[in-house]
Amino acid sequence: MPNPAKFIEIDSAFVEKTILELASFGAVGETGVSRTVYSPEWIGATDYYAKACAAAGLDVRRDAVGNVWGRLKGSTSEKAVVSGSHIDSQTPGGRYDGALGAVAALLAVKALKEQFGTPRRTVEAVALCEEESSRFPNANYWGSRAVTGRIAPGDPERVIAFSGETIAEAMRAVGLDPARIPEARRDDIDSFVELHIEQGPILEQAGLPVAVVDAITGIRHYRAEISGVQNHAGAFPMDIRNDPLAGFAEIASGLINTAHRMGRPAVTTVGRVLVEPNFPGIIPAKVEFTIDARHPDAQARRRLYDMHEGLMREVAARRGLEIEWQVMLDHEPSPSDPGIVSTLQRVAGEQGVPFMTMASGAGHDSQQMASIAKVAMIFVRSKDGRSHTPDEFSSVEDIVAGIRVLAAGLHALAY
Amino acid sequence: MPNPAKFIEIDSAFVEKTILELASFGAVGETGVSRTVYSPEWIGATDYYAKACAAAGLDVRRDAVGNVWGRLKGSTSEKAVVSGSHIDSQTPGGRYDGALGAVAALLAVKALKEQFGTPRRTVEAVALCEEESSRFPNANYWGSRAVTGRIAPGDPERVIAFSGETIAEAMRAVGLDPARIPEARRDDIDSFVELHIEQGPILEQAGLPVAVVDAITGIRHYRAEISGVQNHAGAFPMDIRNDPLAGFAEIASGLINTAHRMGRPAVTTVGRVLVEPNFPGIIPAKVEFTIDARHPDAQARRRLYDMHEGLMREVAARRGLEIEWQVMLDHEPSPSDPGIVSTLQRVAGEQGVPFMTMASGAGHDSQQMASIAKVAMIFVRSKDGRSHTPDEFSSVEDIVAGIRVLAAGLHALAY
Repeated sequence: MPNPAKFIEIDSAFVEKTILELASFGAVGETGVSRTVYSPEWIGATDYYAKACAAAGLDVRRDAVGNVWGRLKGSTSEKAVVSGSHIDSQTPGGRYDGALGAVAALLAVKALKEQFGTPRRTVEAVALCEEESSRFPNANYWGSRAVTGRIAPGDPERVIAFSGETIAEAMRAVGLDPARIPEARRDDIDSFVELHIEQGPILEQAGLPVAVVDAITGIRHYRAEISGVQNHAGAFPMDIRNDPLAGFAEIASGLINTAHRMGRPAVTTVGRVLVEPNFPGIIPAKVEFTIDARHPDAQARRRLYDMHEGLMREVAARRGLEIEWQVMLDHEPSPSDPGIVSTLQRVAGEQGVPFMTMASGAGHDSQQMASIAKVAMIFVRSKDGRSHTPDEFSSVEDIVAGIRVLAAGLHALAY
Repeated sequence: MPNPAKFIEIDSAFVEKTILELASFGAVGETGVSRTVYSPEWIGATDYYAKACAAAGLDVRRDAVGNVWGRLKGSTSEKAVVSGSHIDSQTPGGRYDGALGAVAALLAVKALKEQFGTPRRTVEAVALCEEESSRFPNANYWGSRAVTGRIAPGDPERVIAFSGETIAEAMRAVGLDPARIPEARRDDIDSFVELHIEQGPILEQAGLPVAVVDAITGIRHYRAEISGVQNHAGAFPMDIRNDPLAGFAEIASGLINTAHRMGRPAVTTVGRVLVEPNFPGIIPAKVEFTIDARHPDAQARRRLYDMHEGLMREVAARRGLEIEWQVMLDHEPSPSDPGIVSTLQRVAGEQGVPFMTMASGAGHDSQQMASIAKVAMIFVRSKDGRSHTPDEFSSVEDIVAGIRVLAAGLHALAY
């Protein structure tokens, strides 16, 4: 590891320019971005990213699902060191979630090329095609799953958009052949380091610009449906109703209270609710809702889910309602590679960037990449902890600090 | 009052045939009906009703909002005795809510004509055009409001459908001129008696076919919106969230519990909920919901609303959420005319129909008609208390019993 402690220069004006230009693809209002995978806005953004990689002197390649790779070839055939994140967004999200990690990777590799020349290991920046599930609720890390060979042969036909089309249809519409997805698989990646906004307020509360992430929380999504007896809102006495909205309200309150009482870092969110028939004067027939519940500790996570399921059963039985649920996604907690974590901690210190170490409460492409490579993450402070909204914001100073830690980390791993 | 105790004959086969034929307009599945005002199905049903009135020897007239009247002219110029109900339905509702009252009025007037000849007062059957607010959430008794002169000049442009069109546009599309609505006003009605299914389980629990209704409950609809801070479902700790779904769930549970604890006949229903942005992985920004809260006693009703509003304020303030609400409709309790109530009680006894007296928990056209006429209602037992669903059902025996009480009541008032 030559020159590990050299100060890495990052051009903050160029950082800001790149973020703003990328945010123009799918711009909503002043600061929002709505850019779902394989949409026209997404095509614009991936074209922009490819051009920016080329302008930085990297070899550009697009793989079978539309991930865009910018490669700085190493002097040896050792496995590659990769950084990046997803280029799709919520509808609308902001300028930073995902996009910042793709931009940071590109700017870090550009800086290494300019300031350190050819690395020992190949170093790559990547814009992953999809992570948010904002167009296909089941897409489930489409970009990093392709890279890790985790897309099953039937998936392209089984992954269905909110508006009904399959992801296979959406791929064909932008010139990608779903049958070639296996070609996106990589087995030559040694390490993957992802920079991302924190998406929570912990760094802001601690007054720190950057965190090294030592684990990603375990996530489960339930889709539940609670059914009762539809009736007239006026003429049916309260004491003999089977009102699924009453059951839902009690369950939602209880789930939220359970996670709150368990304490940080347990979180549970009811984010999606559909009532049928959804008229003011009718006791509903059923309420469909989602539960997103997370914990980075495997045992505490199991306990959280047991309490949630027990509550749903108890409320439904007591109120004479029927309930059923499906687990729509289920990701075990994903610890970071301890070696990369300590490398990142060390180089952050060497670069003079104050930091803390924390677990991620959000899921990230890194936890997919962990199946083929050593992984770790870097978080950048997020104003008010906001994300998945046009209001998300990270200062250029914090972003530059994050990119310097990222570049120094990639340097330590690849040079 | 000649022959008050004469047994009134009602042809149960003809009753059944008429109900089933009317239900064919807007039929959904085996027993459902979806018939919103001014739709093609509604036109079919009103045409059918007009033909059936003509076939019964009544003078048919359609007024400016599309109410259909069948008139049996009296021998004097005294004010008329009218019966009827609305011909529109929920989407879907069943065969009986509203439609049964229009059919019963027609069959009762037909029976009086056949069995008693010309009345002293004019007797009329009416199919009112709209009561359910199932196409226009603010239509608010469009048919009976036209008859009572309660549609304001700007209303036709202000009443907007769920799908965006104004009721003025919908009227013009079926050949009605909104400017002529004032012509539908009547000032020559003495009494209005409405037969309706109960829409609740009280008659079924009591084992009785028919009720005389001595009051209609007071109703208020609120539309409320509770707003918090949209955020990532994973990375934002529970203890510092401003989650409007958590606030909504606590409020909905509390409202329902308040009405339940107040006891019969208080009822409160949360029937419509819209979450924004409504994605599993996002703490929502806001939840919009409706509250339908009813009590037939003016003082208890005021107390119910005070408790509801207090709860909403308290939960929102405690959880750091913003809440606002509008009162979308507000109907005072409407007592029936004591003279007609005692007449109906007497003739039910004379006709040998077992009955009870109760308040209506549902709103009805009668409460509008009460502004220009003496009113009362007759309820027919409803299986499982169901209404506003394809499952609503009343037996032909119970319906015939109800029509006999109605006919005997109209006879007592008009002959």
